[in-house]
Amino acid sequence: MRRALVLAATPGVPMVADTRRVGCVLLDDAGRTVAEGHHRGPGTPHAEAEALARAGAAARGTTAVVTLEPCHHTGRTGPCTEALVRAGVRRVVYAEADANPVAAGGRAALEAAGIEVESGLLADEAARLAEVYRVALREQRPFVTWKFAATLDGRSAAADGTSRWVSGRAARLDTHRLRALCDTMLVGTNTVAVDDPLLTVRDEDGVALDVQPLRAVMGERGLDPARRVFNDDAETVHLRTRDPHVALADLGARGRQHVLLEGGPTLAAAFLRAGLVDEIVAYVAPVLLGAGRSAVGDLGITGIDQAFRPVVADVTVLPGIDGEEPNVRLTLTPRAPSTPAPRRKD
Amino acid sequence: MRRALVLAATPGVPMVADTRRVGCVLLDDAGRTVAEGHHRGPGTPHAEAEALARAGAAARGTTAVVTLEPCHHTGRTGPCTEALVRAGVRRVVYAEADANPVAAGGRAALEAAGIEVESGLLADEAARLAEVYRVALREQRPFVTWKFAATLDGRSAAADGTSRWVSGRAARLDTHRLRALCDTMLVGTNTVAVDDPLLTVRDEDGVALDVQPLRAVMGERGLDPARRVFNDDAETVHLRTRDPHVALADLGARGRQHVLLEGGPTLAAAFLRAGLVDEIVAYVAPVLLGAGRSAVGDLGITGIDQAFRPVVADVTVLPGIDGEEPNVRLTLTPRAPSTPAPRRKD
Ligand SMILES: NC(=O)c1ccc[n+]([C@@H]2O[C@H](COP(=O)([O-])OP(=O)(O)OC[C@H]3O[C@@H](n4cnc5c(N)ncnc54)[C@H](OP(=O)(O)O)[C@@H]3O)[C@@H](O)[C@H]2O)c1
Ligand SMILES: NC(=O)c1ccc[n+]([C@@H]2O[C@H](COP(=O)([O-])OP(=O)(O)OC[C@H]3O[C@@H](n4cnc5c(N)ncnc54)[C@H](OP(=O)(O)O)[C@@H]3O)[C@@H](O)[C@H]2O)c1
Repeated sequence: MRRALVLAATPGVPMVADTRRVGCVLLDDAGRTVAEGHHRGPGTPHAEAEALARAGAAARGTTAVVTLEPCHHTGRTGPCTEALVRAGVRRVVYAEADANPVAAGGRAALEAAGIEVESGLLADEAARLAEVYRVALREQRPFVTWKFAATLDGRSAAADGTSRWVSGRAARLDTHRLRALCDTMLVGTNTVAVDDPLLTVRDEDGVALDVQPLRAVMGERGLDPARRVFNDDAETVHLRTRDPHVALADLGARGRQHVLLEGGPTLAAAFLRAGLVDEIVAYVAPVLLGAGRSAVGDLGITGIDQAFRPVVADVTVLPGIDGEEPNVRLTLTPRAPSTPAPRRKD
Repeated sequence: MRRALVLAATPGVPMVADTRRVGCVLLDDAGRTVAEGHHRGPGTPHAEAEALARAGAAARGTTAVVTLEPCHHTGRTGPCTEALVRAGVRRVVYAEADANPVAAGGRAALEAAGIEVESGLLADEAARLAEVYRVALREQRPFVTWKFAATLDGRSAAADGTSRWVSGRAARLDTHRLRALCDTMLVGTNTVAVDDPLLTVRDEDGVALDVQPLRAVMGERGLDPARRVFNDDAETVHLRTRDPHVALADLGARGRQHVLLEGGPTLAAAFLRAGLVDEIVAYVAPVLLGAGRSAVGDLGITGIDQAFRPVVADVTVLPGIDGEEPNVRLTLTPRAPSTPAPRRKD
């Protein structure tokens, strides 16, 4: 299902109403992938149809893992339920139920045809994917998730600048999960100059994804082309602006819908001040430094009354790996007086 | 049981081996307190015995709420099980089972006598109380819990110094719970000078405890006697030293076993550097300030390799009260290479 979600998040789906981003993986009894598919927008095959077409006769007896309940209506494409039955799929596992009354009824139709159906797997993440798409559509700009990692005393690096590693391995793995569900990673020029990050995404097994998110660097200064972010592992764009609105418009024009803002503190603060952060994912490590670089840049706040107080959507303890201590992940949504707060669940 | 724990934490129990701090409350059917008792050390009555003596005939039909499983052996005092049966107590609720093989068997004895027995209520907190006592005994100084509250970006106050309120009401209530289980609250002279805190403890209903912890202020400067900490609500001592060892020795000589170090950042950092913090309780509020006073003072750490990395004993989400956002409480125990890490559970 994680793979199906990543497929669903594949960039390129146009931002038009009544479109859903959906991914599908067909697995054989041994759990091996037979074929994959994802929806590419209106008029193109649904994710299931694409996967079934690719699998051909090999679809017989497989399990179809889909991010959304298969549709049961004849729209621009035939009902996926019928296609699945016809292809001889044995079992269907989906994440999110289809709330669209026109397309609903997929589960019942499949079960009536004798197909085993399971639902709810990673449903939260599927709902989040739908929400990201919904907000991007509404705002006509990419959804922005700001991710940062900090110590319990709010530092992102020690006094001498060293920061490997503030957060634990579990948090770093989780970051790759986040990245895989975005289509763009954005950092400031200074992070590239100082940290020289690679900004590529690997799956749980450490294998680089076949479709990598776009790497975007933002800022006016020129950058050494030998920096790792400019290598051939993925596409990269240097946005020569300091205006978050301009940067997002540029990325939107490139068909991007979900930007993971990875820092540094200066760039993140600029997006926060501009009201252009739709979601915050903070990894808190049980570490104290007492000094060093702050994880968050100046927000122009002087008094406690002006404090930025987002809404808590989720708190998760990430158990430590290999004897490390657990980290805490907080997912927050800003509460802006001007725009209604984007909520994780409708 | 919360009241019984507070009774158990009453100061005055001498630090000698084989002593437990125990509290007991007798409740009638309406949940009203009939009598209370706590153990005061070797040769004195057990908590149950004290409460029964105070209740007299009124003990009949009551529920005895005790922090420790009633003992079933004739030591310096008779078995509490027999006393409870004799007094006609109807039901016994205890927090922690007695691991001492000599005293154990209390539950079975009570049940054999037809008394209803329940156990495990707030057992974690009872175990923590026992652990505090054990460490204080081993180190021959009071156990030190450092409590601090911070924003997600590690600030304890905004740039202009305003800090009401960084943490939510749930966290502030929880602080009173912590305070009630300590016998001393310690702050630096600057916190008294700047914040003028009252440092008294109220129960869940906002009522001041009858036995208040000692208020201790540490630092060399003279302080205005009109500061609220010097009022008559509780006892106060000004420790005119900057040496954490000297301060703890002084408090130990006053029979104190559990110091709640409440800041500020400078004093807390001094205790951390001296290796004199046994437990850290951090309240993290989902608030960003981007600037302002750091919640933790300079620890003399320059590189990430020297970072202070305590062990996570517990992470709890404190649900927001009155529409406030939840706060996260982390309980940590330092991992000192010199002294074995004090663990919450043996
Ligand atoms: N803890 C974490 O999660 C995390 C994540 C990433 C990085 N980091 C750390 O953060 C450090 C770098 O952070 P940083 O804050 O110095 O750099 P940064 O935010 O990566 O980049 C700042 C630069 O971005 C450009 N920029 C673009 N738009 C801007 C705007 N609206 N306002 C201001 N500047 C804008 C400016 O450079 P131009 O002159 O080019 O315009 C500015 O100097 C690194 O040491 C890295 O380790 C931490
Ligand atoms: N977020 C929280 O949980 C929290 C809790 C409490 C306070 N605070 C905030 O913290 C601020 C005050 O903190 P602060 O750090 O300035 O003051 P502080 O830690 O309360 O007091 C510092 C003073 O303590 C004395 N001192 C005693 N032992 C010392 C030692 N070993 N090393 C250094 N100094 C020692 C020194 O004064 P002498 O010259 O008298 O020796 C020193 O100036 C307030 O604004 C308050 O709001 C926050």
